[in-house]
Amino acid sequence: MVSPQALAALKSALGDGGWTDDPAEIAPWLTEWRNRWHGHTPLMLTPRSTDQVAAAVRVCAGHRVAIVPQGGDTGLVGGQIPFGEVLLSTRKLRAVRDVTPLDDAMTVEAGVTLLEAQQAAAAADRMFPLSLAAEGTATIGGVVSTNAGGTAVLRYGVMRDLVLGIEAVLPDGEVFHGLKRLRKDNTGYDLKQLLIGAEGTLGVVTAATLKLFPVMRSHATAVVGLDSSRAAIELLARAKVETGGGVEGFELMKRIGMEFVLANIPDTREPLDSAPPWYVLIELVSGEPGAADAAMERLLAQAFETGLIVDAAIAQNDAQRAAFWKVREEQSAAQKPEGGGWKHDVSVPVSRIADFLEEATAAVERFHPGARVSAFGHVGDGNLHYDVLCPPGGDLKAFLARWAEGSQIVHDIVARYDGSISAEHGLGRLKTDEARRYKSPLEIRTMQAIRAAIDPHRIMNPAVLF
Amino acid sequence: MVSPQALAALKSALGDGGWTDDPAEIAPWLTEWRNRWHGHTPLMLTPRSTDQVAAAVRVCAGHRVAIVPQGGDTGLVGGQIPFGEVLLSTRKLRAVRDVTPLDDAMTVEAGVTLLEAQQAAAAADRMFPLSLAAEGTATIGGVVSTNAGGTAVLRYGVMRDLVLGIEAVLPDGEVFHGLKRLRKDNTGYDLKQLLIGAEGTLGVVTAATLKLFPVMRSHATAVVGLDSSRAAIELLARAKVETGGGVEGFELMKRIGMEFVLANIPDTREPLDSAPPWYVLIELVSGEPGAADAAMERLLAQAFETGLIVDAAIAQNDAQRAAFWKVREEQSAAQKPEGGGWKHDVSVPVSRIADFLEEATAAVERFHPGARVSAFGHVGDGNLHYDVLCPPGGDLKAFLARWAEGSQIVHDIVARYDGSISAEHGLGRLKTDEARRYKSPLEIRTMQAIRAAIDPHRIMNPAVLF
Repeated sequence: MVSPQALAALKSALGDGGWTDDPAEIAPWLTEWRNRWHGHTPLMLTPRSTDQVAAAVRVCAGHRVAIVPQGGDTGLVGGQIPFGEVLLSTRKLRAVRDVTPLDDAMTVEAGVTLLEAQQAAAAADRMFPLSLAAEGTATIGGVVSTNAGGTAVLRYGVMRDLVLGIEAVLPDGEVFHGLKRLRKDNTGYDLKQLLIGAEGTLGVVTAATLKLFPVMRSHATAVVGLDSSRAAIELLARAKVETGGGVEGFELMKRIGMEFVLANIPDTREPLDSAPPWYVLIELVSGEPGAADAAMERLLAQAFETGLIVDAAIAQNDAQRAAFWKVREEQSAAQKPEGGGWKHDVSVPVSRIADFLEEATAAVERFHPGARVSAFGHVGDGNLHYDVLCPPGGDLKAFLARWAEGSQIVHDIVARYDGSISAEHGLGRLKTDEARRYKSPLEIRTMQAIRAAIDPHRIMNPAVLF
Repeated sequence: MVSPQALAALKSALGDGGWTDDPAEIAPWLTEWRNRWHGHTPLMLTPRSTDQVAAAVRVCAGHRVAIVPQGGDTGLVGGQIPFGEVLLSTRKLRAVRDVTPLDDAMTVEAGVTLLEAQQAAAAADRMFPLSLAAEGTATIGGVVSTNAGGTAVLRYGVMRDLVLGIEAVLPDGEVFHGLKRLRKDNTGYDLKQLLIGAEGTLGVVTAATLKLFPVMRSHATAVVGLDSSRAAIELLARAKVETGGGVEGFELMKRIGMEFVLANIPDTREPLDSAPPWYVLIELVSGEPGAADAAMERLLAQAFETGLIVDAAIAQNDAQRAAFWKVREEQSAAQKPEGGGWKHDVSVPVSRIADFLEEATAAVERFHPGARVSAFGHVGDGNLHYDVLCPPGGDLKAFLARWAEGSQIVHDIVARYDGSISAEHGLGRLKTDEARRYKSPLEIRTMQAIRAAIDPHRIMNPAVLF
């Protein structure tokens, strides 16, 4: 319960247009696209400047009012949905503050979308490489706070690797001015690294300085067919060596997932005639015009010769490239008409992916005979979206009721392979409790101590993380 | 003062061969190569396993005994030198625990030298890219704890970017088992990022899992001559775009630094006949055989045409490449016979390097007429070793007495350019106090709160950092 005094103080601090308590205006921001969470809040704040964010947090700190920060509301684990807390949306912090090509850096505010950030970089003849399905809606504040990943991590890293500086309002309402553009700065603990991926529990990120990269002069995209996931891992290693690090994307798909896409998503086409058991979408890049295509041809020729791949198609134009990416990007949406299932966003060491897939799939099939496993994802990073679907014609409600139990089987195997139960989506409200099973008491205790040191009244996203 | 009971308990915990209090054995580890620090300690511990480190730290925690951790003793800011604290050397933690090429990862213990780590990677047909002058002696524990940089940061990042996992003994003597090999793991705060660069104040790093990279198939090295540092920055931007990120090294040198090397270091040669005011050593790499050489020729031809460079020499063989690097690597040593000077390890945004150099040099010359500025370094990262030498024939003692005052002039300008007063060496004992001038109270208070949360009795390297 937020006191009337606190609500009045917040409204007064932000002024007209800076807040709303109209349920209709707030409603869209209390749920998300999977429609899994339905939250509630007495007040939504929409500050337009860092100073306004600071003013709001100061009021909350003074009144001990809990805050849930929210960006584009594309998170998949409920970390951005309030359940009684005040909702602080950063989506009106909209400025691209600067783009400096000589520094390969740009500073954007939290409410700039990922797509807009990519476009601002492109306008300066540079590239911001982080890319993910929700990029038209996801905002930089959220992408930083959840340490987002996506499809280009293999070459460019996760968000943690792409941030040079951060501006944030800490839980006492003071502004951390950390918008450095430096590549080297060894003057104490790296506070920005603590804020990245903290899911809004240590403060509200209001702006970030991002690393930019040269625009690549050649791209080559192919879909290959393989007999096993093990062959995919071997191909990945060869591709990295062959290109000297020019592999930008390496996405695994399984035959069943391809069938879902072909059956359920309009305007999609089978990329390979041979209908192989496994597919990989490979994206190579190079700074040299034409070099990516040449490297792709060398790589695939050699892989055919040694029997590593059984089929391949290289995209001949942008339309074909888009068609190849479409069958990958629709893997998740294509599951919906099949009746939904247990979703897992896991990572294991790349070298253990094939073993993990065999062991987890056998265990799932024992636990729920007939369940269909559709594994796909950024296998170059060891990151799999490992989804288990209801048997065809099975009782969906009964199947979904076993989600927690089934997930624990999968996650226990992930843990044995030294993996992560949340590779890129974070813990949020969905996985925080489960993560206690896999984190050591030492890690949890240390995180709690750090959190208490920075947010002694635990007002920042209190239900999320430890 | 460490109590006799604590000393006895430490000796007993580590057993024979795990400690020494023989002043002659300890002496080499109480000073460093610049001979600037002369420390003292009642006891040097040399544990051979993580368990032994943990046992030692537990005793220290119980008796409230302060510890200075030490690696290869190559640090330049005195962070590894005890002044009364117990010295805990990690140099006997010597195992390469594993190298897994499919994961592009290897796990090495803290006492493995940087050179040995590079060699272990090379033996598995991979590369570990961090490289610095002291690599034959510097150990992984120290390199992690100081977030070392060096000459390949432009392409591969600093140590912070190259660590996948960490094992460390925390200040209560418990072991943080964080040796993950994952590229994606979003399950709470990134504790390893907090330990990296913490200069031993949050625990003792005992092992690290490091990222490996493909071996590059072509290298091209050139030295170019330029009329201004501004032209060097413009050339850097062109080189990055031209190669799509294939610039591995971009090192600026000034004519005066070149003259010191030629005069004071045997077996060195002027790389360019024209004796230009500024030099840049460029190292390009590519995954394609021959591609780096072709890119270098394109880059330099275009730079000549547009008047950006005035002279250039491309290394034709390994001997020439080594000769080019030698004139860069000896820049620091070549200053010694000139009488020493005020050293600065600073960084500013790349786009502001030329302005910084002009302003700082004018200010230094006003402050101490005749002083000679030798700026050189990893300019691709915005990192300059900005050294000010005594005027020829001047009073060296009087000049060195003005170091603190002169440095403050330089550092104030660095701060105005949003730079860092310690780009890669850390703060240690040398710069912690000075850093208080440039860090905000908020940053210092937050770091202190984190430190107190993790090391409530402040036993870990207590004189270092805030």
